[in-house]
Amino acid sequence: VTPGAGPLGGSGVSYGIDIGGTKVLGVALDDADTAVAEARVRTPRGTGRIEAGDVADAVVAVVAELTTELTAALGFAQPEVAPPVGVGAPGMVDRSGHLRFAPNLPEGQGVDWTELIGARLRGHRVLIENDANFAVLAEHRLGAARGYRHVVMVTLGTGIGGGIVVDGRVEVGSAGFAGEIGHMVVDPAGPPCPCGRRGCWERFASGAGLGVRAREAALAGRLGQVVKIAGGDPESVRGEDVSAAAAAGDPEARRVIEEVGWWLGFGLANLACVLDPECFVLGGGLVHAGDPLLDSARAAFAELVEGGARRPQAAIVPAAFDERAGAVGAALAARQGGLW
Amino acid sequence: VTPGAGPLGGSGVSYGIDIGGTKVLGVALDDADTAVAEARVRTPRGTGRIEAGDVADAVVAVVAELTTELTAALGFAQPEVAPPVGVGAPGMVDRSGHLRFAPNLPEGQGVDWTELIGARLRGHRVLIENDANFAVLAEHRLGAARGYRHVVMVTLGTGIGGGIVVDGRVEVGSAGFAGEIGHMVVDPAGPPCPCGRRGCWERFASGAGLGVRAREAALAGRLGQVVKIAGGDPESVRGEDVSAAAAAGDPEARRVIEEVGWWLGFGLANLACVLDPECFVLGGGLVHAGDPLLDSARAAFAELVEGGARRPQAAIVPAAFDERAGAVGAALAARQGGLW
Repeated sequence: VTPGAGPLGGSGVSYGIDIGGTKVLGVALDDADTAVAEARVRTPRGTGRIEAGDVADAVVAVVAELTTELTAALGFAQPEVAPPVGVGAPGMVDRSGHLRFAPNLPEGQGVDWTELIGARLRGHRVLIENDANFAVLAEHRLGAARGYRHVVMVTLGTGIGGGIVVDGRVEVGSAGFAGEIGHMVVDPAGPPCPCGRRGCWERFASGAGLGVRAREAALAGRLGQVVKIAGGDPESVRGEDVSAAAAAGDPEARRVIEEVGWWLGFGLANLACVLDPECFVLGGGLVHAGDPLLDSARAAFAELVEGGARRPQAAIVPAAFDERAGAVGAALAARQGGLW
Repeated sequence: VTPGAGPLGGSGVSYGIDIGGTKVLGVALDDADTAVAEARVRTPRGTGRIEAGDVADAVVAVVAELTTELTAALGFAQPEVAPPVGVGAPGMVDRSGHLRFAPNLPEGQGVDWTELIGARLRGHRVLIENDANFAVLAEHRLGAARGYRHVVMVTLGTGIGGGIVVDGRVEVGSAGFAGEIGHMVVDPAGPPCPCGRRGCWERFASGAGLGVRAREAALAGRLGQVVKIAGGDPESVRGEDVSAAAAAGDPEARRVIEEVGWWLGFGLANLACVLDPECFVLGGGLVHAGDPLLDSARAAFAELVEGGARRPQAAIVPAAFDERAGAVGAALAARQGGLW
């Protein structure tokens, strides 16, 4: 790559940055929709105190750092045109780019990210949106949901995020808060959720949900092999350990993954009642649990969806962009100046 | 009205017929959107046997009878132009007007209503759709949701039906089955539902849900006054009795209505997570329970909706067309040749 030359002089390139609960991921997308650079760092975390200005500043610093890294990786010290930057945030982002509510990133809540990041990234056009809204744009335009007009994206990370395509268009609802599917309550007597309620779907079917279920299983004397790998303490078992053990053939680990898969399929069946999509795209780290998760989710969905055999079968597929879907969609949206 | 004269000669008039679980209701709408005639009969019921052809024939006969009655009521024996007829059915109607699945009208299930009714109503253009999709069209275009671009209609009849307006347009999903909101499962351990699953929302918050809850309360020794009115047998208490008693000030009846209102608000909060509407319109017979129901639904919604005070307050309002919303929307859609 020649610094400052040709299409990499900055025009036609856009950046997407996805602020997750555990990591911040950036990609640069050229005008042929190819990811030409990538960078990542851990999400700065504070004390979990809500609306902590210092943590917001740290997150903005990280976004600026990734922007600089992407520019450097592309080989131009000073782009001719500062690429537009899309930034995805986990939670309820309103139509003006203000993060109103974020159970899984409480310190980022109540922050006007558009203003804060815009002030820091002078020269770049900045667009802030919910991360899963960006993810569904990427998967619908370029990924696993290409060709479908009705799509629900389910990002299985720390929590569960959602993005919706209705009749070929990403839909964000009246205030921008549609697709907050992780907080559908599926059991009013269920475990408490950081959002303040009980029994939200993400308590059962997210990465965090797997962790809780895995520790419960470990404390109940199941998951012997996984506990051994985790150093002998059932409390220190992590979801990733269970995924890895299940993939390696451990039947007890597989059982736990399948239980989470059942809850996943259960929630998809509820969403099918409301939205009737042709395709569910599953993204986020939990999808790395692979077939045991997907197969049990598909089986539960087929058993539970209203009208079962009397309706066309909805596809349930993993994201083509894996954990990068949000960042790729952010770059796409930044280039076109919005989700549409 | 002079037979065959002027705008009532048939042109500009359309008919809407709503096949409900207990009654079939027809309206005639003139080209100024005024309901100029109305007719109703009880829904023919069979043994509850699924896909009973004879019952389907009886329903078609009723639709034809109502069509004739509306024509007679308008004062023209033979319209110059046979008005188009929209027919709403409770359940999953596919995009070709075939009723695929109908837990609350099992005998109408698997029937190609478009073909059957079209063959009977020769000369009339016939359009078949889910009843709540018609209802949301009426309320959005002419009723309680005028001016809102994101709307969820909730018809609280025997079950719960739903119609969705996204960004100003009625949306029916990929196969036509969107808005089947009554069959979101809100408690996996809940009571069995005619749809084959357990704990569907409509088990808790519909007319049938009120009936079940009322009989439970009566059997538990509550609702003394209502049981007395019902003839002393707790098993014969009906939801309508409880609504009437609550409206008349009976505190025990009011308590039962408020419990149902809580479940109603609970489900609306789940729908807000997914769709983020500005307005929920509540229709169907249960809405006659009035303020005790609406107030407790609004309170539960405000308490339970994700992000609570950090989001714009969604309006929760009764349907302007009351139980006629489906029929009026059917007539509107028939006139324009579809939902759009």
